[in-house]
Amino acid sequence: MENTMDLQDMLNMLGQIYEKQMPFHRLLGIRIVNLTPDDVRVRIDMREELIGNFARRILHGGVISAVLDLTGGLIAFAELMTHLGAMPLDELTKRFARASTIDMRVDYLRRGEGEYFIASGSVLRRGNKVTVVRTELTNDKNLLIAAGTGTYLII
Amino acid sequence: MENTMDLQDMLNMLGQIYEKQMPFHRLLGIRIVNLTPDDVRVRIDMREELIGNFARRILHGGVISAVLDLTGGLIAFAELMTHLGAMPLDELTKRFARASTIDMRVDYLRRGEGEYFIASGSVLRRGNKVTVVRTELTNDKNLLIAAGTGTYLII
Amino acid sequence: MENTMDLQDMLNMLGQIYEKQMPFHRLLGIRIVNLTPDDVRVRIDMREELIGNFARRILHGGVISAVLDLTGGLIAFAELMTHLGAMPLDELTKRFARASTIDMRVDYLRRGEGEYFIASGSVLRRGNKVTVVRTELTNDKNLLIAAGTGTYLII
Amino acid sequence: MENTMDLQDMLNMLGQIYEKQMPFHRLLGIRIVNLTPDDVRVRIDMREELIGNFARRILHGGVISAVLDLTGGLIAFAELMTHLGAMPLDELTKRFARASTIDMRVDYLRRGEGEYFIASGSVLRRGNKVTVVRTELTNDKNLLIAAGTGTYLII
Repeated sequence: MENTMDLQDMLNMLGQIYEKQMPFHRLLGIRIVNLTPDDVRVRIDMREELIGNFARRILHGGVISAVLDLTGGLIAFAELMTHLGAMPLDELTKRFARASTIDMRVDYLRRGEGEYFIASGSVLRRGNKVTVVRTELTNDKNLLIAAGTGTYLII
Repeated sequence: MENTMDLQDMLNMLGQIYEKQMPFHRLLGIRIVNLTPDDVRVRIDMREELIGNFARRILHGGVISAVLDLTGGLIAFAELMTHLGAMPLDELTKRFARASTIDMRVDYLRRGEGEYFIASGSVLRRGNKVTVVRTELTNDKNLLIAAGTGTYLII
Repeated sequence: MENTMDLQDMLNMLGQIYEKQMPFHRLLGIRIVNLTPDDVRVRIDMREELIGNFARRILHGGVISAVLDLTGGLIAFAELMTHLGAMPLDELTKRFARASTIDMRVDYLRRGEGEYFIASGSVLRRGNKVTVVRTELTNDKNLLIAAGTGTYLII
Repeated sequence: MENTMDLQDMLNMLGQIYEKQMPFHRLLGIRIVNLTPDDVRVRIDMREELIGNFARRILHGGVISAVLDLTGGLIAFAELMTHLGAMPLDELTKRFARASTIDMRVDYLRRGEGEYFIASGSVLRRGNKVTVVRTELTNDKNLLIAAGTGTYLII
């Protein structure tokens, strides 16, 4: 199953870029917990700088929308890679640099209380150019904190 | 016009809390450029940590959605204060801690290139409980980078 | 289990109002296929007047968003009734006339081909005033045609 | 200015198709009040069948979202035609049949009271494939009833 190996290698590399080479992802402190064709999970740990309230220890809404957006984009791009299979590294890099979010909706469902949070999601539509992804953020008690829907241009 | 004075004093205090007492706002480095009943403007300067691409110097989509969300919330709360007029400080504080975003849509219109960005907006609906705000982010060349619509629970 | 009976009677009455007393619902030709506390399903049959294309027999996007909106509202109101339990008829009627959609997002995922369509959904958030519902429309082959998220004011 | 003439002729033809050849548009009873490159306005008259409430004479939310969706699509397609200039009729027809809404957000701002309503809007983003349009619905007193943002695939 060399082809599958290649795909997983590529996904791993994508995960590394996501975690380590994108400055805002480092500032947030996200970690890719899992990145396989069928399951993408991103974790963010609560810490002082991410608090969005002057009175309570809750995650800022902007952190929540950022994590849902970047997780949705990762899912959309991983879907493309899975669909296209192995490709030369420089083509992968070019496509990744070109990918972008077109629009996003976030629903804030519960206050962001917890010591860590997990973002995951699934593809609703994979088109030629446009991919739609639904995402969710849960806390360390597995309570649903927020839900998102993002439309991504992946070409 | 003592009443107007009081309102502007309260808005100034709100601006101080927004800039200095909310940890994630400090991490982003936002500044309240103007906060009067009819005009709210929030500025964020580009810097290395806010970049969302490994190849290009553009603002991360998550920074954009965070700034639009916090600006919309500020506009919604300033509208409430303007409408209610002067109130005791502890009531103001309680209401502010209770305010929250219900949902938000962001449209990413252009790549986030620029040395600084300005977020502004206007109230579409001010209800008893729910306030809807349209927001926009422009860059230092006054190009529209993103547009948002947020629904806020302000009670 | 008289209480449960009352609730189901009330839900049945709500379903009758929805189908028969709201003029636009009659114009669309929706039918309440199921309306129990845990499962709400609304059906619409394809017919000539609902076509949205001059060349192809597909459901108009406006029909899709209308059906998702009205299904989400029905789910939100049924949730309230289930939560509050039996109430006097005139209070039910008043609350129902007051209920309204605050905002909605619809994602159109596939062309609306099919002889009939089923809308269903589930509550994401039930607050004191604001209820958020995710909805889906599938066709007669159980393919997902569209997905929605609506925020409702139910007081 | 023969070229401009051609464009306006094409827009007029598009308006005719929109009003007369799309069955759901006829069911709603929309009329194209103006369709020029810079100004698109669609009118819908209140009538019994469009009511969304059993107690009050207000426009159904589904009618509102349908009219905003179809107006946004018309604006997106008129923008494409204005940009591309004159094209053979069969190419125009093919492109039009292919155009579709990707997603839409609607904010319901006021109850839909009025004898008639006007939908209009403007392009936020015109890309190679994806066009984003903001729309508004006002009533006969020029009060803002609803606001929308739609993302359209126009290729």
